[in-house]
Amino acid sequence: MKKIGIIGGTGYTGGELARLLCRHPDVEIASMTSRKDAGRRVSDVHSYLYGYADLEFTEKVSDDVDLVFVATPHGVAMNEVPSLLSSGIKCIDLSGDYRMHDVPTYEKWYGHTHTDVENLRDAVYGLPELFRDNIKGADLVANPGCYATATILACAPLMKSGLVGSDIFVDAKSGTSGAGMNPSARTHHPTCGESILPYGVGTHRHTPEIEMAVQMYSGIKPDVLFVPNLLPIVRGILSSCYFTLKDGVEPEDVESIYADTYANEPFVHAVPDPTIRAVVGSNHAQVGLKAFGNKVVAFSVLDNLVKGASGQAVQCMNLMMGFDETAGLDFPGLGV
Amino acid sequence: MKKIGIIGGTGYTGGELARLLCRHPDVEIASMTSRKDAGRRVSDVHSYLYGYADLEFTEKVSDDVDLVFVATPHGVAMNEVPSLLSSGIKCIDLSGDYRMHDVPTYEKWYGHTHTDVENLRDAVYGLPELFRDNIKGADLVANPGCYATATILACAPLMKSGLVGSDIFVDAKSGTSGAGMNPSARTHHPTCGESILPYGVGTHRHTPEIEMAVQMYSGIKPDVLFVPNLLPIVRGILSSCYFTLKDGVEPEDVESIYADTYANEPFVHAVPDPTIRAVVGSNHAQVGLKAFGNKVVAFSVLDNLVKGASGQAVQCMNLMMGFDETAGLDFPGLGV
Amino acid sequence: MKKIGIIGGTGYTGGELARLLCRHPDVEIASMTSRKDAGRRVSDVHSYLYGYADLEFTEKVSDDVDLVFVATPHGVAMNEVPSLLSSGIKCIDLSGDYRMHDVPTYEKWYGHTHTDVENLRDAVYGLPELFRDNIKGADLVANPGCYATATILACAPLMKSGLVGSDIFVDAKSGTSGAGMNPSARTHHPTCGESILPYGVGTHRHTPEIEMAVQMYSGIKPDVLFVPNLLPIVRGILSSCYFTLKDGVEPEDVESIYADTYANEPFVHAVPDPTIRAVVGSNHAQVGLKAFGNKVVAFSVLDNLVKGASGQAVQCMNLMMGFDETAGLDFPGLGV
Amino acid sequence: MKKIGIIGGTGYTGGELARLLCRHPDVEIASMTSRKDAGRRVSDVHSYLYGYADLEFTEKVSDDVDLVFVATPHGVAMNEVPSLLSSGIKCIDLSGDYRMHDVPTYEKWYGHTHTDVENLRDAVYGLPELFRDNIKGADLVANPGCYATATILACAPLMKSGLVGSDIFVDAKSGTSGAGMNPSARTHHPTCGESILPYGVGTHRHTPEIEMAVQMYSGIKPDVLFVPNLLPIVRGILSSCYFTLKDGVEPEDVESIYADTYANEPFVHAVPDPTIRAVVGSNHAQVGLKAFGNKVVAFSVLDNLVKGASGQAVQCMNLMMGFDETAGLDFPGLGV
Repeated sequence: MKKIGIIGGTGYTGGELARLLCRHPDVEIASMTSRKDAGRRVSDVHSYLYGYADLEFTEKVSDDVDLVFVATPHGVAMNEVPSLLSSGIKCIDLSGDYRMHDVPTYEKWYGHTHTDVENLRDAVYGLPELFRDNIKGADLVANPGCYATATILACAPLMKSGLVGSDIFVDAKSGTSGAGMNPSARTHHPTCGESILPYGVGTHRHTPEIEMAVQMYSGIKPDVLFVPNLLPIVRGILSSCYFTLKDGVEPEDVESIYADTYANEPFVHAVPDPTIRAVVGSNHAQVGLKAFGNKVVAFSVLDNLVKGASGQAVQCMNLMMGFDETAGLDFPGLGV
Repeated sequence: MKKIGIIGGTGYTGGELARLLCRHPDVEIASMTSRKDAGRRVSDVHSYLYGYADLEFTEKVSDDVDLVFVATPHGVAMNEVPSLLSSGIKCIDLSGDYRMHDVPTYEKWYGHTHTDVENLRDAVYGLPELFRDNIKGADLVANPGCYATATILACAPLMKSGLVGSDIFVDAKSGTSGAGMNPSARTHHPTCGESILPYGVGTHRHTPEIEMAVQMYSGIKPDVLFVPNLLPIVRGILSSCYFTLKDGVEPEDVESIYADTYANEPFVHAVPDPTIRAVVGSNHAQVGLKAFGNKVVAFSVLDNLVKGASGQAVQCMNLMMGFDETAGLDFPGLGV
Repeated sequence: MKKIGIIGGTGYTGGELARLLCRHPDVEIASMTSRKDAGRRVSDVHSYLYGYADLEFTEKVSDDVDLVFVATPHGVAMNEVPSLLSSGIKCIDLSGDYRMHDVPTYEKWYGHTHTDVENLRDAVYGLPELFRDNIKGADLVANPGCYATATILACAPLMKSGLVGSDIFVDAKSGTSGAGMNPSARTHHPTCGESILPYGVGTHRHTPEIEMAVQMYSGIKPDVLFVPNLLPIVRGILSSCYFTLKDGVEPEDVESIYADTYANEPFVHAVPDPTIRAVVGSNHAQVGLKAFGNKVVAFSVLDNLVKGASGQAVQCMNLMMGFDETAGLDFPGLGV
Repeated sequence: MKKIGIIGGTGYTGGELARLLCRHPDVEIASMTSRKDAGRRVSDVHSYLYGYADLEFTEKVSDDVDLVFVATPHGVAMNEVPSLLSSGIKCIDLSGDYRMHDVPTYEKWYGHTHTDVENLRDAVYGLPELFRDNIKGADLVANPGCYATATILACAPLMKSGLVGSDIFVDAKSGTSGAGMNPSARTHHPTCGESILPYGVGTHRHTPEIEMAVQMYSGIKPDVLFVPNLLPIVRGILSSCYFTLKDGVEPEDVESIYADTYANEPFVHAVPDPTIRAVVGSNHAQVGLKAFGNKVVAFSVLDNLVKGASGQAVQCMNLMMGFDETAGLDFPGLGV
């Protein structure tokens, strides 16, 4: 049993990591930190972990762990990761700190200086279906954003096919748990509970992440207008991606791209009608597309807290540690 | 046209007052205050009022108004009301400051000293269906709480009938707008959006208000266990009230109590199946009951921001000012 | 007072017409039909109309009315309208029967023969902001679809500007009341209540309607991929429309198009952030756009049962009958 | 590995059984029937089971199974169970067919004759926390209703304590998946999606089931007024149960009853604030109570499809087959 630490255990992704790791056959949760809840029992804070997480939150992560998940707000991980790596502890960062390989791009979209440029350059982008081999050998993995995961899974294969133009409109819809546990005007129920709220249009930080990862996979830099929307549900993302077929390409030419790309994947499935409820609670994602004339709409769904965050992080851990890739994640979505 | 002021125009009840008053035939909104938004146009803050509220928020209410609605958090009105009344301006307070006639009860449930005891004693409890005549002559009306209005409309006639015992269990469910516009952990969508959350059990301030008003109307002091629940909807309250029939009373003895009590009321209706959607958006309430053996459940529904707050306040204003009681309020609920 | 008939009064748009007309200063509801509920009191079927609709549903509409709204499923109106028009009764059809001016287009998208081709040719498309003058003189108005209204309001001015290409992706999201009152697998709460469901991709009948109306207004035929989505809310549509700027056009060139187009409109408003809750319950719509590089996203929101159906029909009636255009509709949305 | 059959695999409880059993260490799903979907692959009907359920729906259950779950509407199981039992196949019925031990009570509440009275008498009521030993030796288990499970877990220990009176008011709230997969007027999203709907007041079939089970456990027959409400969420029940303390009993006398009763239970937990989201997706339930003066409110939460149906059925199977009681069910709720 390998020992695992979680930095930032109070938040949604930290709790979700515990929900998944407590049933993982190859690891134990040795340490969970929380600035706010240090000294409290984990299951008193997260009552759903009663019987599954028999430890207390601490201020600092213990140093006898083999791997640490950093589940903190943006800007924290870059202060924690260098010393962890120096101590020989592998790291998976669930924040945006290590996602952008290009420092100026990072600083432009995140609005401040990056203080760990060296590790930024070596960090591996943790999307297993596209970059599995890189993840296997990595000491530091940047876990992708939730919107980014959904969108990249839909866009990368189409872009790689060479059959669509590089202009992409992405109309993405997310459950509110993607906003994290801190209350805000936008996630206040009277504001969002009976509406759908576009926000961060053209300025959301997943935009350059999507463009970077799609280019890494396909060799082609897309030009993405990314429009996120807050949905009145708790878990789940639907990313609807709009493409134009190149001249001479017919709708039927793109129909089997997803089935071909993801045929052997345990967690990503080509289906006729991707449905959020089919994947909620699980690490599975579904993709599907429909083409008419010269236009394509591709749909991608996942649970933002699982395949869009903590589940994908566990999947990356499995690859980094040499476990079965599906260990601790091999169960279906709720369906209903 | 009488001139009206609103103190506290940024919040939900302040905005709702403007939504109703902007179409009222006998008044104009002369002044709306907001500490936070002073200097901004009302319709820039409340975009739904575009074309309907052509004024700016100010720091202080103008002194040429005939009546002021105080739509501020608890504890503010008692500082504003004395000088307004001294200036001959009638007041309707939508907060809890003037609801309890008994000072010790106020101080026990609200946890601080009341600084305007004199006006507290004279304030009229503004529930028109039960205390219409008192409201007509009042200079200061304490507008009832939302849960309280729903619950009292159901409980008072039954208690007055003398056919039920004085022990009442109230299981009340409210939409989230009842919590006001300030985000909190409880109204954060991931917390409340796919759940129902009991809270404030036995400690909610509407408990003594319900007991006081039911006693004022019926002459009998009920003993109420009040259990509020946060519903994942924005507008609407369902108050389910449980009673025990006195020995020898048969279910059919209580069946027509609501129809009899509310036969001539413009806004409260006895119906077989009270339904939130039938009244949302309007000042209407519906009540109905079912009795089996020695047990009764009574249901009461209303829109917490209209009949449960701003609409009822306008109804009180109509009575205080000698307008038609239904002026500005005479339209049906959304239905769907 | 003019006399009004409603054919199909049980359904959502029929009930909504009654909700609006019962407060209209210039008309009275003289007759409401319902095959299912004939003989029942309207307010027993629609409890929200208690006190507002003092009549019974009948099998047939009375013949002494001045104007009839036909609020029936597709395919019914074409059997009712010819004799009504022959009797000198003006008609507004809320279904799709008279929306398409081109018979083959109608028959392709609706899948059956049109039996009233003559009136189909003369019917006026009832979107007042774009075709006001035509509506004023019309005897038969085809009330636009809900998605179509939202989408056309956003697309027509941009297309007319000549600054964008003719390819449009429309990602539209609707509340469930748009599906009508008949239960179905898709509107079953466990299916749709915690999800967002794309459906009818590329096959929805509002596609040709949008293309037709935008071309009528702008002179340019757009090529639309229309993707409707079912949202887990009851009322409200957000239509997000994606455009590409023509070469040489800058984002700032399109910024004021909506403000210019709709400057004097009572019901359509250019705002920075169109929000469903601002318009729910009312006949108002909001539009706004954001442009980045060569890409534009335009947002349009409305209440699908009001500006997207019954409210717009009343607005058309007002024009046809020479009433004030805003009569019966001049109130703001709920806001919260 | 034991072989399991599921009769009625298309519905929610049938699908949920497959979701749980596909990961169970001791069984394999050998046969799933569906009248409607016979011949189709299970994962084509339930896309969330893709990769987890590699079989086709059949008309009849295969006869080489060790145990059959009957997940059909009320009235079907009594036709299937006799021959299965005769063939030596154990049965767990998820419908109401075998829950009432008293034939007249069954026939009164279900409205038709019971055709398998013999097995009705021997069927064991499958609530493990209260009747574990009986279940271990059973060939036929009647799986409790969802509301009933939640309510009995809250009521039985209090009643057994002898500290409360026998009159109980139960205000229960359920997610819509409890209504099954067939669309209806009540589960139509526009009806239920922004409301809470009381229904079946005093007539719901879980009423006598609650009374029976509480009496079996406590020796005291309670008199229950059961008021179910449809909540606008998909999964989850909150049952709020109201009691009166006997004369001389103090609130603190009842405080530890749940902690004492359920101290060693793997799936039922006494917590201060039972919360639906803590248990959704899992077989866990939470109970808690608050007492004031002579009144008590007890809260019980569970996922109606898991602990309220299929999960509890698997728990019963584990007991009947001698597996570890938690096999296949030992994972936490979603939490968020």
